[in-house]
Amino acid sequence: MDIQERYTNVRKYSEELCKPLELEDYIPQAVEFASPPKWNLGHTTWFFERFILANHLPGYKLFNPTYDYIFNSYYENIGERVQRKKRGDLSRPTVKEVYNYRQYVDRNMLLLLGQGISKKVYSLLELGLNHEQQHQELLLTDLKYNFSTNPLFPKYSDRAFCEDIKIEIPVYVEIPEGIYPIGYSGDGFCFDNEKEAHQVYLQAFQISKPLTTNKEFIAFIEAGGYQNVNFWHFEAWKWVNDNNIICPMYWKKLDGEWHQFTLAGLRKVNPENPVTHVNYYEAYAFAQWKGQRLPTEFEWEAASSYLQWGDRWEWTESAYLPYPGYKKAEGAVGEYNGKFMVNQKVLRGASVATPRGHERKTYRNFFHPHLGYQFTGIRLAK
Amino acid sequence: MDIQERYTNVRKYSEELCKPLELEDYIPQAVEFASPPKWNLGHTTWFFERFILANHLPGYKLFNPTYDYIFNSYYENIGERVQRKKRGDLSRPTVKEVYNYRQYVDRNMLLLLGQGISKKVYSLLELGLNHEQQHQELLLTDLKYNFSTNPLFPKYSDRAFCEDIKIEIPVYVEIPEGIYPIGYSGDGFCFDNEKEAHQVYLQAFQISKPLTTNKEFIAFIEAGGYQNVNFWHFEAWKWVNDNNIICPMYWKKLDGEWHQFTLAGLRKVNPENPVTHVNYYEAYAFAQWKGQRLPTEFEWEAASSYLQWGDRWEWTESAYLPYPGYKKAEGAVGEYNGKFMVNQKVLRGASVATPRGHERKTYRNFFHPHLGYQFTGIRLAK
Amino acid sequence: MDIQERYTNVRKYSEELCKPLELEDYIPQAVEFASPPKWNLGHTTWFFERFILANHLPGYKLFNPTYDYIFNSYYENIGERVQRKKRGDLSRPTVKEVYNYRQYVDRNMLLLLGQGISKKVYSLLELGLNHEQQHQELLLTDLKYNFSTNPLFPKYSDRAFCEDIKIEIPVYVEIPEGIYPIGYSGDGFCFDNEKEAHQVYLQAFQISKPLTTNKEFIAFIEAGGYQNVNFWHFEAWKWVNDNNIICPMYWKKLDGEWHQFTLAGLRKVNPENPVTHVNYYEAYAFAQWKGQRLPTEFEWEAASSYLQWGDRWEWTESAYLPYPGYKKAEGAVGEYNGKFMVNQKVLRGASVATPRGHERKTYRNFFHPHLGYQFTGIRLAK
Amino acid sequence: MDIQERYTNVRKYSEELCKPLELEDYIPQAVEFASPPKWNLGHTTWFFERFILANHLPGYKLFNPTYDYIFNSYYENIGERVQRKKRGDLSRPTVKEVYNYRQYVDRNMLLLLGQGISKKVYSLLELGLNHEQQHQELLLTDLKYNFSTNPLFPKYSDRAFCEDIKIEIPVYVEIPEGIYPIGYSGDGFCFDNEKEAHQVYLQAFQISKPLTTNKEFIAFIEAGGYQNVNFWHFEAWKWVNDNNIICPMYWKKLDGEWHQFTLAGLRKVNPENPVTHVNYYEAYAFAQWKGQRLPTEFEWEAASSYLQWGDRWEWTESAYLPYPGYKKAEGAVGEYNGKFMVNQKVLRGASVATPRGHERKTYRNFFHPHLGYQFTGIRLAK
Repeated sequence: MDIQERYTNVRKYSEELCKPLELEDYIPQAVEFASPPKWNLGHTTWFFERFILANHLPGYKLFNPTYDYIFNSYYENIGERVQRKKRGDLSRPTVKEVYNYRQYVDRNMLLLLGQGISKKVYSLLELGLNHEQQHQELLLTDLKYNFSTNPLFPKYSDRAFCEDIKIEIPVYVEIPEGIYPIGYSGDGFCFDNEKEAHQVYLQAFQISKPLTTNKEFIAFIEAGGYQNVNFWHFEAWKWVNDNNIICPMYWKKLDGEWHQFTLAGLRKVNPENPVTHVNYYEAYAFAQWKGQRLPTEFEWEAASSYLQWGDRWEWTESAYLPYPGYKKAEGAVGEYNGKFMVNQKVLRGASVATPRGHERKTYRNFFHPHLGYQFTGIRLAK
Repeated sequence: MDIQERYTNVRKYSEELCKPLELEDYIPQAVEFASPPKWNLGHTTWFFERFILANHLPGYKLFNPTYDYIFNSYYENIGERVQRKKRGDLSRPTVKEVYNYRQYVDRNMLLLLGQGISKKVYSLLELGLNHEQQHQELLLTDLKYNFSTNPLFPKYSDRAFCEDIKIEIPVYVEIPEGIYPIGYSGDGFCFDNEKEAHQVYLQAFQISKPLTTNKEFIAFIEAGGYQNVNFWHFEAWKWVNDNNIICPMYWKKLDGEWHQFTLAGLRKVNPENPVTHVNYYEAYAFAQWKGQRLPTEFEWEAASSYLQWGDRWEWTESAYLPYPGYKKAEGAVGEYNGKFMVNQKVLRGASVATPRGHERKTYRNFFHPHLGYQFTGIRLAK
Repeated sequence: MDIQERYTNVRKYSEELCKPLELEDYIPQAVEFASPPKWNLGHTTWFFERFILANHLPGYKLFNPTYDYIFNSYYENIGERVQRKKRGDLSRPTVKEVYNYRQYVDRNMLLLLGQGISKKVYSLLELGLNHEQQHQELLLTDLKYNFSTNPLFPKYSDRAFCEDIKIEIPVYVEIPEGIYPIGYSGDGFCFDNEKEAHQVYLQAFQISKPLTTNKEFIAFIEAGGYQNVNFWHFEAWKWVNDNNIICPMYWKKLDGEWHQFTLAGLRKVNPENPVTHVNYYEAYAFAQWKGQRLPTEFEWEAASSYLQWGDRWEWTESAYLPYPGYKKAEGAVGEYNGKFMVNQKVLRGASVATPRGHERKTYRNFFHPHLGYQFTGIRLAK
Repeated sequence: MDIQERYTNVRKYSEELCKPLELEDYIPQAVEFASPPKWNLGHTTWFFERFILANHLPGYKLFNPTYDYIFNSYYENIGERVQRKKRGDLSRPTVKEVYNYRQYVDRNMLLLLGQGISKKVYSLLELGLNHEQQHQELLLTDLKYNFSTNPLFPKYSDRAFCEDIKIEIPVYVEIPEGIYPIGYSGDGFCFDNEKEAHQVYLQAFQISKPLTTNKEFIAFIEAGGYQNVNFWHFEAWKWVNDNNIICPMYWKKLDGEWHQFTLAGLRKVNPENPVTHVNYYEAYAFAQWKGQRLPTEFEWEAASSYLQWGDRWEWTESAYLPYPGYKKAEGAVGEYNGKFMVNQKVLRGASVATPRGHERKTYRNFFHPHLGYQFTGIRLAK
């Protein structure tokens, strides 16, 4: 697949994901972290315009200079921007104008790619495409959140994104004590946070091949897990009580049976599926209740080829920190990862919403411990 | 004009007001008090459905029972509802569905009106129509606020709703001490808060015939009015400082000249126009600076036939309180006015956005003292 | 009684009120509105120093210039001050230093009074003494609040300040329609908010001779008064629900019986006493439930000589607004009353904690409608 | 030293630290994290009463059962307690009563120790003594904060706790790549978070022998370090801007010179001293500006015997996480460390306020990244 084709495929996929939407669905933002589809479409486009076209296509003219203010997410080196929680307040630009923006930028990107690009621009291009893939996942998870607050329970598609998964016989993989290589050392694309490749010393450990199921998690609920302080971190217990949490996000009990809001509307919880939309606090509490623990990201990576990947981002015990020798890029693009390396936890694997081909065993996803709106799950270790 | 025609005219006018909108403009709510156009259209319709059709048209079937939850504003007797600040989070029902809802309710209302209605239903009808007229004004003032937060400065129409008004020669009307009749005593429609008609004793006073102009208010600004604590209430001073207020809402200084955001986009402030979008705190502070005061609502009403009405809601010094003998209606409809009679100030007159025919000299509008997003102005007394 | 004696008596009474305190009790402030005794003692002293001695005793030297920052309450014209909610954060000056401060200021005040004072200083002196009397009441009500949060239930005295009061036979006084004089017109001291004396026109009304009792209020509670939205203002209902209010402040049910925290510790609620520590919202809701209403402050004043004063501050329906012809004093002292004339309700009468001789039938006390930590009660009208 | 003597010495030292206090100083709490001295004295006493005497001295009678509510810090397994931020609201028990409480508990503890104790009780005793030593440090750092908010700038002692320290010639220690032992493996006391001892693989690194000085940090300030987003984490930048941070805690510039509030009052900043009261965000930003980084806690421990300990707690890059094989104790005492292992950073070393003998090279202190009220400093690595 040549570079133009790859570019076009990734870009088209974002628009395909929006096909089932009503025009109204592009606008609202029910909570700070759940950006509107319109913003996701515009922001990914702006990334190519701001970081590639504006600097590397001679004579390029910005589509609309105010978009720097509207579609910048958090790049302080670019300048001021609309507050994150106010992205849903903007009716303009219209959806049509955003699609026009996409076409304008795509036309110019293809022009640039046709001219041949330097290694530096190529690496920005790869970053832009991987960035757009990350937003393709967010587009679905953000929309799911926004729909979930609507008393009409809108439906995005017939697919619930909670497919049946055949859980392999529960068995723990044993990994012996020793020195293991960690981080990305190949020739392809990786994010800066996957480097430098280095060695870690691991004690012997066991790690579960399959993910934790809904059935197992319901047992935790029924055992009073949400009411027993001893399974929870201090901050987690405050979160549980301040918000009266009694089950995972999107769950509700109707007529004595657990249901969950999905992208196909409200559905019964399937006991055999991997539990989803738990946050780190819940994942940790569940592990405590089991007398086990979450794996570190290093254990996960060392064991990754023996694991059943279960279409969930998996919480690890590891904090999101720089690897030895970590270097961030110069300029605004250097704000991509490094500045988030405090107070977040690493997730490994990939989810049912991750675009195929985007996953990697050295991939380090990260979220704050109280957030569960991604398709997140639990893998135990001991 | 017969009752069907009157009903149809009022209802059509709401939709006419929406003609200039893009579909996206129907959705966002940038602040709790500024409801989306879609909600205003749905809520006024729901008012007829819930208070008239559901109770008085035999066999009437609700368009969608969930709309009770979505389009109820604050009627606790009806039940739970979407939180006021979350009206902009809902992409569904779509705009088209809301227009279908309007047609459905209108068809049934006309059916009912054709059958002839009791006096009780007639008074609910009048309430519903006056209620819709109030929301026609809100539709514009809410939209203005929502547009004002958009860095693209959208334009609703070519009309700025800040027309030139010929200010009459500044002259104070003198009203002698004595007993004056207050409140509504006619046969037509009035809100319950305009009753009972009663007498008040007024000391002699003078009241300005015209409203305060932008020019006069700019003099207050330039005299350091926003920086001098002695003109302000304790709570007002906190508001000024917590929010760094230095001019009326929607104003900004560009290249040394005052501009204001209008429904026709950003415009220069016209010095001869009545000042607009001041809150009660600012109106009071301006009066203090002038060594004058705001009139009470009783003074205003006693003098009303001598005043130049200046297309602004006029802040009075009066708190919004029940008149002697005030009675609220039974049931949910009794929540219309009475439960707001604390911590609000009375405004008198009418504004450029008030539908023609809706104004009345006994009309009592009311808002919290810190709010200035209505077309509010200042009239002095002494 | 000569002026020195009067000064000394008032000043000594503040210190007498503090006799039962442990030194530790002078320090904490459990909530913004409940200032520590140490602060009340210092602030009243500062009032004499700042407004009289500093300007009118030649050669007077401030006790400690930093006290302007520590003991200024809200006089913006004097300058910056410790935030109101941080008065309890200060261990220094020590209690002993504050008493030294009092002695120093008293010595100098008596020196000045001995020299003879002008009419202007005399009126500041009267203001200072009445101001200190207001703080004598606050000293008790603030202390009561601070003690009430302590799990050890400290006791200030053997007196509960909830004495048995013989309620006169419930009978309504009838006041005929007509013109009544309102406001202070004598020669003695009054606050600026009691002027100008003027006339009001009142409709005929009936007003209860005695105050509402605990027994009557318990009937309201038991009738589900706190659970019925129709008795409450919109803002009141939010207050009830946000704070899970089910009874007046300081009440709790123990073994099926209502108790209340008093200055003598926890005591059973006496059914025959006037209900106390209700806020305006509760007073209004109770009146609604009775099918009656609260009197306006004008009705109260017109009827005052026929009423049984029941040692409670009585909520009125009136908002705290300036009388016709109201003028505030020049300079910092002008901040005493006028700047609070928004969003507050008038209370009339006097309470069990009001120093004897401080009450007056034209006296206008005022508090925000949600506050009930004063000794406040209910009188009905209809 | 026998066990009674050791117990007595530790307990006496807490009271010695309080000798310079006025009685008023025992009460206030100016911010949630800075507990009053009275509470620190009571809480450490309660720890012995609740975890040792109540369970292990037959017939022991609690001094006052309400103290379980007042002096419990965060032990959910014990029960409800006074909210952390409300410890300063309580005037009672009086200071004298708290000292009586100490004597009562000490008398009983010595009785118990005289009888001989089991290994289990001995380990609780050691925990209690180390716990009290931790609070001895907090007693000073909390008091420093509370004093710092007082406009009178109170003085605790003539000692500023900012002694001159001879900084060794700046030189980096080189540590080679390899496997290093981490964690406590001796026979004496350690906290549970120092176990299990295990091995880590470290890349080669250099670490600074001395700590960063005030002079070096002033260079960062003067180079605009607080204004350059690129040195800061995303959350740190928000902290800087929301709070207008321009220098370390307790610093202020007077007449062009940096001063800092100390336990001996306001003093000039000594350029040769190690910088103090920086939080993790500032430590990280400083390191970024230098083109270096903070050491991990593993690097610190591996290098610890080559470093100049500079009487500051040293921020590391490591998140506070469990070591492999970490186990928390059964019951309430298990809440000591484990439940805080999220969203905090590890500090190593010891500070000028740490009681002598309490420090240890495997000691893991931890605080949230935004807090700088401990005596915290910076050591660089690369």
